[in-house]
Amino acid sequence: MMLALSVALTACADQADRSADLATETATAAPTAAMLSSWNDGAAKQEIVDFVERVTDPASPDFVSVEERIAVFDNDGTLWSEKPMYVQLMFALDRVKAMADMHPEWRETMPFSAILADDQEALAGIGVNDIVRIVTGTHSGLTADEFATVVTEWLATARHPRYGVGYDELIYQPMVELLEYLRANEFKTFIVTGGGQDFVRTFAKRAYGIPPEQVMGSSGDLEFMMQNGEPTLFKTAGINFVDDKAGKPVGIHRFIGRRPILAFGNSDGDLQMLQYTAPGGRVALGGIVHHTDAEREDAYDRDSHVGRLVVGLEEAPARGWVVVSMKDDWSKIFPSPDLP
Amino acid sequence: MMLALSVALTACADQADRSADLATETATAAPTAAMLSSWNDGAAKQEIVDFVERVTDPASPDFVSVEERIAVFDNDGTLWSEKPMYVQLMFALDRVKAMADMHPEWRETMPFSAILADDQEALAGIGVNDIVRIVTGTHSGLTADEFATVVTEWLATARHPRYGVGYDELIYQPMVELLEYLRANEFKTFIVTGGGQDFVRTFAKRAYGIPPEQVMGSSGDLEFMMQNGEPTLFKTAGINFVDDKAGKPVGIHRFIGRRPILAFGNSDGDLQMLQYTAPGGRVALGGIVHHTDAEREDAYDRDSHVGRLVVGLEEAPARGWVVVSMKDDWSKIFPSPDLP
Repeated sequence: MMLALSVALTACADQADRSADLATETATAAPTAAMLSSWNDGAAKQEIVDFVERVTDPASPDFVSVEERIAVFDNDGTLWSEKPMYVQLMFALDRVKAMADMHPEWRETMPFSAILADDQEALAGIGVNDIVRIVTGTHSGLTADEFATVVTEWLATARHPRYGVGYDELIYQPMVELLEYLRANEFKTFIVTGGGQDFVRTFAKRAYGIPPEQVMGSSGDLEFMMQNGEPTLFKTAGINFVDDKAGKPVGIHRFIGRRPILAFGNSDGDLQMLQYTAPGGRVALGGIVHHTDAEREDAYDRDSHVGRLVVGLEEAPARGWVVVSMKDDWSKIFPSPDLP
Repeated sequence: MMLALSVALTACADQADRSADLATETATAAPTAAMLSSWNDGAAKQEIVDFVERVTDPASPDFVSVEERIAVFDNDGTLWSEKPMYVQLMFALDRVKAMADMHPEWRETMPFSAILADDQEALAGIGVNDIVRIVTGTHSGLTADEFATVVTEWLATARHPRYGVGYDELIYQPMVELLEYLRANEFKTFIVTGGGQDFVRTFAKRAYGIPPEQVMGSSGDLEFMMQNGEPTLFKTAGINFVDDKAGKPVGIHRFIGRRPILAFGNSDGDLQMLQYTAPGGRVALGGIVHHTDAEREDAYDRDSHVGRLVVGLEEAPARGWVVVSMKDDWSKIFPSPDLP
């Protein structure tokens, strides 16, 4: 309670500051530069700041009430790194190994046998159906609480093959700043991930300041049961919802019930979310994180297997979406001083 | 912005008050009596206030952090009246009549023919499958935005057969006070309804102060499409999720991702939500609104078709759930001075 109170009082101090700002008609300009410190000055940063100032300025024709200031973000490749493969797939591969003793049949069954034998050649050829089998096979057969514990323990110990740090250190510092900047301007920030929501919820609060109830994503079937008299939610192997492509606007309506005014993605899996949020001709901002930095992170778009981006780049100019070049627009990629 | 700022500053004044209260060690006691003014003094009110004080007092062994202060409420029969039938079913019946010209086949097809002929005898005999056909038939074939408009217009004009007022005037004043009291104690309040979430979201903010993203319920299938170049969400006739009975804890996990510490319901449709939240032996409060007031509202439980309550009453003593008697515990039922 004391911590909460202290946070609340700090927020009140912020409010008072902003009230003073309003009086001098420099409303949101003051905190901007400081909060987006890992963004280089340039068109992308300017478009974002201009948009936020327009929708928060009560004198602007584009003013949007606090209630409608909904901002949605894809996760993989938009808020954190997705190379060499999705982090959740890394988790699933490790989990196949950890669960192998309970599943002797896996040694004879593709794609599990290739994972257990570290057969990189066979793994390179696996398709979507194999990935679904890997994910459902490793994300079911335990309670929701147990799953959260398993993910948390894995994140605490697993290391990224290139950077040698935990995966949750590979979040994008400029995007964390953008989330904070939006919340300071009374936006409510949500994650809309094609990944599993139970997976992302384990670290989203710590990494991005986004609580579980503001994280939606793909999900598996779930069964309520009494286990030795204890009410339990058990994860079963079925797929409930795939929060990707046309699923993203559907998920947004189901979870939020109103259309966002800001959306950021990085691949064509985010295309429909961007179209729904910012079709053009609406007071809204669409944004694409473009992976252009082969040196500090990775450079990929049209030809990439993970995070393929074709149509988004084509539609961006006509719909007025901001295309953020990681190489040119970001002075820093990751939070740690030891990383780029 | 000015309104938002003014609200924020009022909240700050409240914070300052509470900070002063904390200093004199009467933290939440002061606002209580005033905020629950439609509750009679008695065991039910006392149990609620005791619980809230225990979980918000940092010196209490039962203290719960602000983040985990999640409270969930059923809607029909818990926050508003559900007699003589669910309000949404009233809406669906009116909608059958409004849509009849577009569906000439309905004049020959049960249950639609009985509705159009006002055949009360035939209507009294319809079962769950008929109700599903009525709801899916009247809640699909239009966009999500169009549906919200239709519901809003209906709520503005339809009148309750007994009280002669709009349905959204038949919310329970003591429950509205409880929601406000919980939010003043930094709880986040959610609706978990067996009814349609698109339906309840149209009025939940106005009636209960609960925004759309904190309303979950049953939902139909939804399809994203470009309609004349405009991104559109179209409601189709399939059923996506039934947020009732064992579906309630599942829905809570999907939407919120953590276990609530307070749940209120009124029927056995809320049983699993109550068990999940307050199984006994956990710092949590379960509550049942018991319809005991035949004079001011209605008296029903075991033998009622709508809002049947049997197991909840049986389990309440062992699990420590508060059973609220509308007759004895509430001095006022509805907000309007012209109503009981």
